[in-house]
Amino acid sequence: MTLLQRSIAEAIGTFWLVFGGCGAAVLACGVPNTGIGYVGVSLAFGLTVLTMAYAIGHISGCHLNPAVTLGQVAGGRFPAKEAPAYIIAQVIGGIIAAAVLYIIASPDLSAGIGAFATNGWSDMANANGLNAFGGKVFGMGSAFLIEMVLTAVFLFVIMGATDGRAPAGFAPIAIGLCLTLIHLISIPATNTSVNPARSTAVAVFVGGMALKQLWLFWVAPILGGVIGGVAYKVLAEKKCCCGDKCCCEKKEEA
Amino acid sequence: MTLLQRSIAEAIGTFWLVFGGCGAAVLACGVPNTGIGYVGVSLAFGLTVLTMAYAIGHISGCHLNPAVTLGQVAGGRFPAKEAPAYIIAQVIGGIIAAAVLYIIASPDLSAGIGAFATNGWSDMANANGLNAFGGKVFGMGSAFLIEMVLTAVFLFVIMGATDGRAPAGFAPIAIGLCLTLIHLISIPATNTSVNPARSTAVAVFVGGMALKQLWLFWVAPILGGVIGGVAYKVLAEKKCCCGDKCCCEKKEEA
Amino acid sequence: MTLLQRSIAEAIGTFWLVFGGCGAAVLACGVPNTGIGYVGVSLAFGLTVLTMAYAIGHISGCHLNPAVTLGQVAGGRFPAKEAPAYIIAQVIGGIIAAAVLYIIASPDLSAGIGAFATNGWSDMANANGLNAFGGKVFGMGSAFLIEMVLTAVFLFVIMGATDGRAPAGFAPIAIGLCLTLIHLISIPATNTSVNPARSTAVAVFVGGMALKQLWLFWVAPILGGVIGGVAYKVLAEKKCCCGDKCCCEKKEEA
Amino acid sequence: MTLLQRSIAEAIGTFWLVFGGCGAAVLACGVPNTGIGYVGVSLAFGLTVLTMAYAIGHISGCHLNPAVTLGQVAGGRFPAKEAPAYIIAQVIGGIIAAAVLYIIASPDLSAGIGAFATNGWSDMANANGLNAFGGKVFGMGSAFLIEMVLTAVFLFVIMGATDGRAPAGFAPIAIGLCLTLIHLISIPATNTSVNPARSTAVAVFVGGMALKQLWLFWVAPILGGVIGGVAYKVLAEKKCCCGDKCCCEKKEEA
Repeated sequence: MTLLQRSIAEAIGTFWLVFGGCGAAVLACGVPNTGIGYVGVSLAFGLTVLTMAYAIGHISGCHLNPAVTLGQVAGGRFPAKEAPAYIIAQVIGGIIAAAVLYIIASPDLSAGIGAFATNGWSDMANANGLNAFGGKVFGMGSAFLIEMVLTAVFLFVIMGATDGRAPAGFAPIAIGLCLTLIHLISIPATNTSVNPARSTAVAVFVGGMALKQLWLFWVAPILGGVIGGVAYKVLAEKKCCCGDKCCCEKKEEA
Repeated sequence: MTLLQRSIAEAIGTFWLVFGGCGAAVLACGVPNTGIGYVGVSLAFGLTVLTMAYAIGHISGCHLNPAVTLGQVAGGRFPAKEAPAYIIAQVIGGIIAAAVLYIIASPDLSAGIGAFATNGWSDMANANGLNAFGGKVFGMGSAFLIEMVLTAVFLFVIMGATDGRAPAGFAPIAIGLCLTLIHLISIPATNTSVNPARSTAVAVFVGGMALKQLWLFWVAPILGGVIGGVAYKVLAEKKCCCGDKCCCEKKEEA
Repeated sequence: MTLLQRSIAEAIGTFWLVFGGCGAAVLACGVPNTGIGYVGVSLAFGLTVLTMAYAIGHISGCHLNPAVTLGQVAGGRFPAKEAPAYIIAQVIGGIIAAAVLYIIASPDLSAGIGAFATNGWSDMANANGLNAFGGKVFGMGSAFLIEMVLTAVFLFVIMGATDGRAPAGFAPIAIGLCLTLIHLISIPATNTSVNPARSTAVAVFVGGMALKQLWLFWVAPILGGVIGGVAYKVLAEKKCCCGDKCCCEKKEEA
Repeated sequence: MTLLQRSIAEAIGTFWLVFGGCGAAVLACGVPNTGIGYVGVSLAFGLTVLTMAYAIGHISGCHLNPAVTLGQVAGGRFPAKEAPAYIIAQVIGGIIAAAVLYIIASPDLSAGIGAFATNGWSDMANANGLNAFGGKVFGMGSAFLIEMVLTAVFLFVIMGATDGRAPAGFAPIAIGLCLTLIHLISIPATNTSVNPARSTAVAVFVGGMALKQLWLFWVAPILGGVIGGVAYKVLAEKKCCCGDKCCCEKKEEA
C-alpha cells in the first residue's frame, strides 16, 4: 500500500475514533435514566479502535493517534519519515468527524470547557465541589501526570500486543479495550485524551479554554507515548536477537 | 449450501437480531434502578450479531440486514442476483421476531413513535425538552445524516474485518461490537436503525408515525452501506492484485 | 478423560455458573447508586460460561446446563447414555454453589419469589405496577414462551459456534456472550433461567412459590434446547457430507 | 528472558492492575449520574489483566498477583524458587501505582476502611444498614470464605485456560474477564481483593483498619489459589501423560 493509501486509512480511522467516541459522549452520555454514562463512553472510544484495527490494521497499522505514531517511532516499530503524513491525516480525519458531529448536534451545544467532549482540567470546583466532568478537582500537574502515565502504558501494551511473540490476531482486542480501560479511569480527571488528534478535533470547534489548554494534550500524551515505546523496547526486545522465534526491531507489516 | 438454506439462516439470524435487540429495549431498558439502559440495549444488539456470526457465518455470511447485503454487493463481495432472497428472508425473520415479542409483551405496549423499539426522529421536544428517546431534538436531516454515516462506517468495518488480510476468525467480534458502538452513539438520535429489516419489523406492529418515517430507515442505511462498501473497495482492494497473500474481489465462502 | 472426571468438571463449572451469576444478583445487583444492575448480572452469568468454557471445554465440553446437554443429544453431538451423569453433576454443583452463597449472604435473605435469584413469573403486579423483577407483568404463557425461545436460540448458537466449519477457539466467547444477551433480554420477565440446574439450585433454598413454579424452568428450557439442537442439525448439517472441510454428525472431542 | 527482566515485567503489570483498577474505583466510580459504578470498576480490573496478559504474557506469564504465582507453583506450572522475586516485584509495582494515584488524587482522599479502594469487611452497618461498600454487612468469616472461593476458581480458570489443550491465544480474555466477573460478585462484600499485592498497595497509604485487616487478603487468596491450582492438576492433568496432544506438568513458556 502506498503512503497516501495508508494515510487515507488513518484519516478514516481517526474520523471513526472522534465521531464514535466524542459522538457517544455528546449525544448519549447524559440522557436521563437510560443514558450510557462514562461506562458507555469508555466502551465507545475503545470499540472505535477495536473495530478499525480489524478493518484497517492490515492497511496502515491503525494508529489513529499522533502519540501512538510517535511512540512506535521511538520504539523502533515505525519509520520516522512517515510520521508527519500519518499525523496530518489523523488530525484532518478527526476535524472532519467533529464537523459532521457538529452539524448533527449543533442545536444544543454550549461553549466552554467540557462542552462537545473537549479535554481540559480545572482548578475551580463547581457548586457541587466537582470539576467540569463530575470528578474531583484536578490541577494542571495532576492532568499532565495522568495523561502521561496512561499514554505510556497504552504504548507499552501496543508494543507488547503487536510483538511477534504475542498471540497473533488479538492485538486489536487488547489495544481497543486498553483505551476503554484508560477512559474508565480518567474521564472524571481530564475527560480523557491520550490522543492529541482527538483533543484538537473538538477543541477547534469550541475554542476558548479548550484551545488554551490544548497544548497539554499534545505534550503529555506524546511524552508518555515515547516513554512507553522505549520502555517496552528496552525491557523486552534487547536481549532476544539470537533465537529464531523472536527478533529485535521487528517492523510491522505496514 | 443452497440459497434456500442460506436464506433460512438469514431469517433465523434476523429473528435473533430483532428479538434480542428490540426485546432488550422493550422489556429491560427502562426498568427502574436496575434496568439495562442504552448501554445494555447497545450490548444486546451487538451480541445478536456476534453470536449469530459465529453460528451461521459459515452458512450464509450472516448479513441480517439489507444494507449489509447491498453494501457487500456494491463492494464486490456478494452476488447481486442473490440479494433479493436474502433481503426478503431478513424482513420475514424480523417480522416473526416482532410478532413473538408482541405476544410476550403485549399487555403493556403503547402506540406512537418510540414505542416497541421503533425508529424515528422528531422536530418536537417533549415536556423535558428532549425527544422521544431522551436525547436532543433532531430533525430529519440530522437523522438521515447520522444513519447514513454510521452505516457507511459499519460496512467499511465489515469489508475490512472480512478481508483476507485481516486476522481470521475475529470478524464476528469486530462486526458485532461495531453494532454495539453504533447504538452507543445514536440511540438518543433515531433509536438507531442502520438496518431496514429491523426498522420494518417493529414499525408494522406500531403503524402511524413509525410507518410514515420508515422510508428514511431504508434509504439512509442502504445509501450509507453502498458508500462504505465502495469506499473500502476503492481504498484497499484496488492495488493488491499481484501478490499471493491478498486478492481482489475476494468472494466470501458463502 | 473418564465420565467421572468429566462429570466432576461439569459440577465445578455449574458451581461457578450459579455462584457467580446468582451471587452477583444477590450481592451486587441492587446496591444503591453504584450497584451492577441487570447489565452487571447479565455480564456475570455470561462470563461464568465464557471463563469455564476456556477452562474445561477441553475436558467435558462445558455444558453446565441440562438443557444444553439434552439439546446437544437431540442435535447429535452428545451421547444420550452420558446425559444422566452430566445432568446430575450439574444439579449437584449448582446446589453446592447456592449453599455456599447462602452461608455467605444469609443474614439478609428474605423468602418469596425473586429472593435469592430464583426464577418465576407473576400474574400480579406490585404497588408500582411491576412484577417481582421490576419488569412488566407476565403470565405463565409469556414466561414459558420466552424461556423456550431463548433456549432454542441458545442451542442453535452453541451448535453453530462449535461446528467444525466455524472459526476454531471462539465458541466460548460466542456462547458466553449469548448467555449475557439472553439475560439482557429476559431478567425482567422471569429473572432468566434457560437452565434447569440454575433454577433448581436456588429454588431448593427458597422453597414456596419458587419450588412450585420450578417445573416450568425444566420443561421450557429443555423443550427449547431440543428444538434449537434439531433445528441447527436439520438446517446446516444435512447436506454437507460430501466435502472434505465439513462433516455430518461431528462428535465433540469429549 | 532473565528473571530480572521478567520481574520488572511483573512490576509494570501489577502497577497497571493497581493504577487502573484502584484508579477507576477512586476517581470514577462514584461520580454522580454518569459515574462508572461497580460495573465499570469490575471492567477496569479485568481489563488491566487482559491488556497486560497480551503485552507481557510472553515475557513473564503475567501473574500480577502473589496468589496466582503461588497457585501456579502448587499446580506445577511455575518453579517455586522464582516465586519470591515475582511476589516482591508485584508488591513493589503495586505500591508505586498507589503512590502515583495518591499524588494525582490526594486533595480528596479520606482515611478509614473503604477509602482509596482498600479491602476490608465490616460487622457494623452504617446509617442505611449497609456496609462500607454499599452492600450487606459481612463478618470476617464471610469475607474469608468469599475471597478464598473466588481465588480458587480464578486459579482453576487460569490453569485450564493456559492448558495446552485449550485454544491457544485466548487465555488473556478468559483470565481478564474472570477477574471482571469476580469483581461483579464481590465488591459489595470485601471491595474484592483476590490479590494480596493489590490489597497491600493501597492499605499502606491508608493505614489503620485497612492495615489491620490486611492479613486476611494475604491468607484467604493464597489458600484459595493453592486449592484451585491443585484441584485443576488433580482433576485434569493426572491421567493424560500418555498421548501426544497433552502433557503433564507442562511448563509455561516463561
